[in-house]
Amino acid sequence: MLNQNDKNAPVRVGIIGLGTVGQGFLRLLLKNREILRERLGFPLTLGGVCEKNPVTLKGLSLPPDCVTYRDWEEMVRDPRISLVVELVGGLDPARTLILEAMKVGKSVVTANKALLAKHGEEIFGSAAAHGVDLGFEASVGGGIPILRTLRESLAGDRIVRLAGIINGTANYILTRMSREGLEFETVLAEAQRQGYAESDPTFDIDGIDSAHKIAILAAMAFGSPVTLEEIPVEGIRHIKPIDLEFGKEFGYVLKLLGIAADHGDSLDIRVHPSFLPEHSLLAEVDGVFNAIELSGQALGPLLLFGRGAGGDPTATAVMGDVMECARGIYHASRAQVPALGFPFSGRIKKALRPLSAIYSEYYLRFMAQDQPGTLSYLAGVLGDRGISIESVIQKGRDRGGSVPVVVTTHRATESQVREALGIIDASVHVTEKTVVIRIEDVSMEGSLS
Amino acid sequence: MLNQNDKNAPVRVGIIGLGTVGQGFLRLLLKNREILRERLGFPLTLGGVCEKNPVTLKGLSLPPDCVTYRDWEEMVRDPRISLVVELVGGLDPARTLILEAMKVGKSVVTANKALLAKHGEEIFGSAAAHGVDLGFEASVGGGIPILRTLRESLAGDRIVRLAGIINGTANYILTRMSREGLEFETVLAEAQRQGYAESDPTFDIDGIDSAHKIAILAAMAFGSPVTLEEIPVEGIRHIKPIDLEFGKEFGYVLKLLGIAADHGDSLDIRVHPSFLPEHSLLAEVDGVFNAIELSGQALGPLLLFGRGAGGDPTATAVMGDVMECARGIYHASRAQVPALGFPFSGRIKKALRPLSAIYSEYYLRFMAQDQPGTLSYLAGVLGDRGISIESVIQKGRDRGGSVPVVVTTHRATESQVREALGIIDASVHVTEKTVVIRIEDVSMEGSLS
Repeated sequence: MLNQNDKNAPVRVGIIGLGTVGQGFLRLLLKNREILRERLGFPLTLGGVCEKNPVTLKGLSLPPDCVTYRDWEEMVRDPRISLVVELVGGLDPARTLILEAMKVGKSVVTANKALLAKHGEEIFGSAAAHGVDLGFEASVGGGIPILRTLRESLAGDRIVRLAGIINGTANYILTRMSREGLEFETVLAEAQRQGYAESDPTFDIDGIDSAHKIAILAAMAFGSPVTLEEIPVEGIRHIKPIDLEFGKEFGYVLKLLGIAADHGDSLDIRVHPSFLPEHSLLAEVDGVFNAIELSGQALGPLLLFGRGAGGDPTATAVMGDVMECARGIYHASRAQVPALGFPFSGRIKKALRPLSAIYSEYYLRFMAQDQPGTLSYLAGVLGDRGISIESVIQKGRDRGGSVPVVVTTHRATESQVREALGIIDASVHVTEKTVVIRIEDVSMEGSLS
Repeated sequence: MLNQNDKNAPVRVGIIGLGTVGQGFLRLLLKNREILRERLGFPLTLGGVCEKNPVTLKGLSLPPDCVTYRDWEEMVRDPRISLVVELVGGLDPARTLILEAMKVGKSVVTANKALLAKHGEEIFGSAAAHGVDLGFEASVGGGIPILRTLRESLAGDRIVRLAGIINGTANYILTRMSREGLEFETVLAEAQRQGYAESDPTFDIDGIDSAHKIAILAAMAFGSPVTLEEIPVEGIRHIKPIDLEFGKEFGYVLKLLGIAADHGDSLDIRVHPSFLPEHSLLAEVDGVFNAIELSGQALGPLLLFGRGAGGDPTATAVMGDVMECARGIYHASRAQVPALGFPFSGRIKKALRPLSAIYSEYYLRFMAQDQPGTLSYLAGVLGDRGISIESVIQKGRDRGGSVPVVVTTHRATESQVREALGIIDASVHVTEKTVVIRIEDVSMEGSLS
């Protein structure tokens, strides 16, 4: 196969896809050639590139012995290429080309979270079956080394819980809404103009991209296959500045979180906006930055923070993986660490806890009829379902009209809350559907304890 | 040699030193036996222990086939032990036993920062010469996976700058002094009673422990040997609550930092208390927690936060290294990644920039004669040396006595400042030696940009 032990033979990398990340990786590969060779002990060279669309290589020129392939099949089949870097994104042809490359014994590095979240089992299975390495650090958190941390550094501990701000676009929008009191639509439009949001921002703002990433993180942390369709997902489209304002009064900051916890017999994985205490570390992560915090049984808390997107940061993650795969090829020592950190077969699928069964604290904003007895009614319905109130803010008076009444609760199940709101929202005491935002119990502050 | 390919043969680990970290590691090894075997694909077993002092194993019992060695020589020479975990600490016999183990072809894992900072060149050289692996993740930042991040995840990028809160005891003391306005001595005494500080706290509070760690971090980040003696070190013994108070008025928090920057031709490595903007991420790291931030040329900023000490967190780092070394032994694929991330020989020693040549902003507290013209004198001397003032706070009046005059400056070299203070402190305008604290230019906030 492609193992090589000739001390002068370089490992030749083929890049498919020369978009932002592809060009970032190309830049690292060409610019840091000497340092890469020094660190690896053998040359890592650019064997070829393949890009369907016309692109301009900004400030880069391909070396003379780099092959330009017209289609990916050609590159994948070329025996001179020993390592394939897939940076085209999307489901197809990415899926096919990765599977084909593995079939001919080539290790693969990819940044494709959507593909891995959707077809991960097939792809991880293929890597295991063909004894090749699959690197995908760049698929979560850009340049933040969270996957290697889970797979290697913390492999001897049990991860109990993970929570992350893993979509920079959503975080940018929430940060600006909160700072400037602007409406969602206003900030989104501006973010699109400035290039912080895509022209079709659905994946980012509806939580789908975060779901892809939390699915990958959970699979690595807990050693269980995770099915994307099972994950409850809620985005930030419906968030109003008034709720960010009230949140501040309670000392909270709103973030779109991916959450994953291992309860032993079941997993709790979800994506939704969450209020966090303003002095927690995740609450301090603003703008386009990403951060992932986790808790290990022996380790305790750990937080990683950095740029979650962008060509250059993401390219460093691709390069870390490429170097590891290249070592495996050069030293004929591939596939010693399973791609997910757990052996592919033998994993046991744990059930996902339904959203109705999760426990949380809640922020509830009622638009209440401004009449005597309304608060007593609301408190009564909540109390009857076992939901106890932690605090209440009731502001302004509009006798005969409606006013916001904001309640934060102690821990209750989602089904208790939904049941109570079913009754309240159907009553004459409120004029609009009640706004519900979960409050995340963050125990990971850099506190004295 | 000790390579083994028998699919049933376990890799047998010997632990020397059963203190807090040793017992934490033992607990992980015994409690997570099944998960370790599953993840590795082969059994990792406890071959033996060696501990000179009488210890009580809390809630742990050694398996029947675990050998109890009377001295380390016996364990190191025993061919049944293929991997030595050194957790005795201190310089000797740690140094000798590590060198002896390597000499007979055994990989070594250690948490011994003092030893590596002092005798690193000898030990890394020996690992390279004997083709064994040396794991030392646990030597910096407890369970925070900063070394693997530098060695593998970011190996394709160039690290420009590192700064860290890498001593939990010092951070605990500064946090409490700042929150409660207490004197250094008061907090230290209480921290000693509560077990947050050692009975001899010198290494922690005088910055020596931080210097050990920043020496290791810098060597890995920049690929240059670093000599401990060259690093300027200043501890926190002299810090007064009044300076923490004035700092707050300027929006600063005081932290003991290890700092390392690569200026191309020279390195800037130092340990000293630094004022940080209160909303920077490092400023939010309180109590016994550690955090390391770094900046990569392509990566941009990255921050890792977690427990920097404690038996269990540190043991997870030891375990991550042990698993990696065990794979190398089992698959006969040792020493594929050099211990420092760079090949041992061929590194070029970069000179350290002397403290006098560094640039910084400064906080200066003068105890000034409360007389007209004093501020004009101070500003004049500073201005004559090219130091421009950013802001001034002058509080209280004590006509004829002395009052604090606090000045923050724009960027200047340390030698400019020392020269100016030499003149001012010798003058009749001040009654005490001026307090100087560097203000760290932190560009790594989770900002919108």
